[in-house]
Amino acid sequence: MKYIGILGSTGSVGKQALEVVGKHPDKFKIKYLACNSNYEELIQQIIFYKPNYISIKKSDKKQKIKEFINSKNIECEFLSVKDLINKVKVDIVLNAISGYQGLEPTIDIINTGTDIALSNKESIVQAGHIIVELAKKNSVNIFPVDSEHSAIWQCLIGEKKEHIKRIILTASGGPFRELSRNKFSKITKEQALDHPNWSMGEKISIDSATMMNKGFELIEAYWLFGVDLKKIHIIVHPQSLIHSMVEYIDGSIKAQMSIPSMRIPIQYAFSYPERFSINNIDNNLELWSIMNFERVDLKKFKCIKLAYKAIKLGGSYPTVLNVSNDIAVDLFLNDKISFEMIPDIIEKTMLKHNHIKNPNLLDIKNLTRWVKDYIPNMVLNK
Amino acid sequence: MKYIGILGSTGSVGKQALEVVGKHPDKFKIKYLACNSNYEELIQQIIFYKPNYISIKKSDKKQKIKEFINSKNIECEFLSVKDLINKVKVDIVLNAISGYQGLEPTIDIINTGTDIALSNKESIVQAGHIIVELAKKNSVNIFPVDSEHSAIWQCLIGEKKEHIKRIILTASGGPFRELSRNKFSKITKEQALDHPNWSMGEKISIDSATMMNKGFELIEAYWLFGVDLKKIHIIVHPQSLIHSMVEYIDGSIKAQMSIPSMRIPIQYAFSYPERFSINNIDNNLELWSIMNFERVDLKKFKCIKLAYKAIKLGGSYPTVLNVSNDIAVDLFLNDKISFEMIPDIIEKTMLKHNHIKNPNLLDIKNLTRWVKDYIPNMVLNK
Repeated sequence: MKYIGILGSTGSVGKQALEVVGKHPDKFKIKYLACNSNYEELIQQIIFYKPNYISIKKSDKKQKIKEFINSKNIECEFLSVKDLINKVKVDIVLNAISGYQGLEPTIDIINTGTDIALSNKESIVQAGHIIVELAKKNSVNIFPVDSEHSAIWQCLIGEKKEHIKRIILTASGGPFRELSRNKFSKITKEQALDHPNWSMGEKISIDSATMMNKGFELIEAYWLFGVDLKKIHIIVHPQSLIHSMVEYIDGSIKAQMSIPSMRIPIQYAFSYPERFSINNIDNNLELWSIMNFERVDLKKFKCIKLAYKAIKLGGSYPTVLNVSNDIAVDLFLNDKISFEMIPDIIEKTMLKHNHIKNPNLLDIKNLTRWVKDYIPNMVLNK
Repeated sequence: MKYIGILGSTGSVGKQALEVVGKHPDKFKIKYLACNSNYEELIQQIIFYKPNYISIKKSDKKQKIKEFINSKNIECEFLSVKDLINKVKVDIVLNAISGYQGLEPTIDIINTGTDIALSNKESIVQAGHIIVELAKKNSVNIFPVDSEHSAIWQCLIGEKKEHIKRIILTASGGPFRELSRNKFSKITKEQALDHPNWSMGEKISIDSATMMNKGFELIEAYWLFGVDLKKIHIIVHPQSLIHSMVEYIDGSIKAQMSIPSMRIPIQYAFSYPERFSINNIDNNLELWSIMNFERVDLKKFKCIKLAYKAIKLGGSYPTVLNVSNDIAVDLFLNDKISFEMIPDIIEKTMLKHNHIKNPNLLDIKNLTRWVKDYIPNMVLNK
C-alpha cells in the first residue's frame, strides 16, 4: 500500500490522479488533499477518497467544509499545506499546483525526504538548480507527471545516461500549429483555450497555445535528466501519440506511445517500479491516424526561443521567464492583453530585470514580487 | 575486448557484422570466421579482420585459400565448424547461417556455454523447446539479431515480464502488401526478391514476400520472450521505421525505431549491456515519411496463418513448417514452382507428416530428411 498526498486535488491533474487512486484501492490510499478554492469538488473528494487531512487555501470556504464533515461525522482534520507536508507521513506527494506558487511546496516536500510526483513544472523551471541539488542531498526521487517527461523517463529505464545521443521532446504544436503568423494578432481566448488533443486546465492550455509549455518542458528535461541542452530537441508531432523519445548513440530510438491519457503518466509516477493495469486505454494501432513529425516554427512560437535563451543564460533568467509568463497568461485570460503580447511582455521583463547569477530562494521570492509589480505597471502605462 | 566468432560470415548479416567489428577495433576482435563457399569474399575478410581460425564448407575451395594464406604468410588455421565452436574460446558467436542448417551449430554453441547472437531464426523455429531449455541449463544468453526481436528486447530492458500486455511485431508487408490476391499467381522471382525497405539475402527476401518471415518471427518471439501466443500481435507498418513494440498493462507502449539498418541490432547483440556509437545513422525525423499501421491480410499471406497453426499445434509442426518452407523457397528460386505454391506445399507437408509430440534432435533430423525427400517427390509427381 502506498500512502499518497495530493496538492492541487481539484485541478485537472489532481482529479485524474484521484481517478487513478480510485481504481486501485488495494494499492493506493489518500492521506491528504489540498486545493485552492473549489470546496464543492473537495467535499465530493472527501466523501469518496476519505483523506485523513485536508487543506483549502481560501479561508472563507473552510467553514462550509467543516459544517459538512461535522454533519456527516467524517473524521478529517484541517491543516495548512506546510503542516500537511511536514507533519503527515506519506510515501509520495503529487504536487499538481498550477503556476509559480508550486515552488515552495516542492522545496518543503523534498526537505522532508519524501518522493515527489511533480506535475508543477514551474517549480523546476524557476529553481531547477536548487531543486535538483536538494533532491540529491535528501535522496528524494522526482518522478515526472508530464506525459513528455514520463515518456522520456520510461524510455530511459534500464539504459545508461552516457548512451544518450539526444532527448526528443514531442509537441502537438497546439491549436495554432497551422495558423499563419500574420493571423496571430487576431487570436481569441476561446481559440487559445481549445487544445486539439488534450483536455487541460486554463493556464496550461494557453502555455500550449504559445508553446511556452514546450519551452518549460525543455528546461524541465534539462534539470530532470541532467543532459546537455544541445542534446534536447523539440519536434512537432501533431497526433500526440508518441509522447517523447530518446535516441541512443548507436542510432536506436526508443519512443513511448499511447492514446492521449494523463492517467498513464500519473499512475506510473505512483506505481513505479511496478505497472498496474488501466482499463479503457485502447491502443488500437490499426485505427490510429497517420503519424508524422515536423520542424518547430520558432518565428511563430517565440516563447520556445525565450525558454532556450533563459536556460542558456541561466541564473535568474528562467525564474523571470516563468513568473512573467504566469502574469502575462493571467492578463491574457482576463482580457487585458492580446495573445501576441505574451512573448513580448516576457522578453521585455527578462531584459529589464537585474540578473542574479545563482539565485537562492529569497532571491526568487523577491524576483517574483518584482515581476508581479513590474508587468501590470508596464502594461497599464503603455 | 569481446572475442567474436562468426558463422556465415560471407552472407548479408555476416558481412554487416564484420563492418560493425571493423568500426570498433578497440572493442571487438574476430577469433574465427566460417562460410559456405564464397572463398573470394572470405579471403578479403581474412586480410581485413585477421581471424585466428577459419572454416569453409565447400572443401574444393579450401586449397585456394590455403595457397593464398601461405603466399602471404598469414597465420590462420583451418578447422571444422564443430571444432571452431568446441575448441576456440570466444565471448559470443554470431550464428548467421541461413536456413535449417543453422540448428546444429546453435545447439553446439549453447552446449559450450557461450553466449549466442542469433540471426538464424530457423534454429528457434525448428527446435525452440530444445534450445530455450538448453540455454537455461547452460546459463547462455540468446541475443536476437533480427531487427524486430532486437527492438522487442530493447523495449523490455528494465521492464518486468509480468507487466507485458502484448508484444507487437511490426511487418513491412513485403513487396506484395498492395498487390491484390488474384494477381499472386503471376508473381515472378524478380518481383519477390525486390524488398521495399531492406536489402537482404535471397532466402529471407522470399520469406519476406510470402510473409513467412513474420510467421517465423512470431514463433521466435514466443520462445525468446516466453509470453503466451495470444499476447503476440503482428501489425503491418509499411515504412519499417518502428521495428517492433511492447505494450504494457497500463497502456504504455514502448517502440524502438530508426532508419532501417541491420548494423544497430547486430552491434547491440555484441555490445549489450553497452551501446557504442554508429556513424551515418541519421535519424532525421522531420524528413521521415508519415508512419502508419495496417491490419495483416491473412487471406493473402497464408504463411502467417500456417505459422500460427504450427506453434499452436506444437510438437513437430514448427519443424515441418520451417524445413518445408526452406525446400519450397529453394524450389521457387530454382523456377520449379510458382510463388503461390509455397504455402500450399508447406500446408500439405504439415498435414502429411507423422506428428511427434516432443521431438528430440534426432527426430528433427529425421523429419528434416523426410521433408527433403517428400516435397520434391510431391512436386515432380504432380
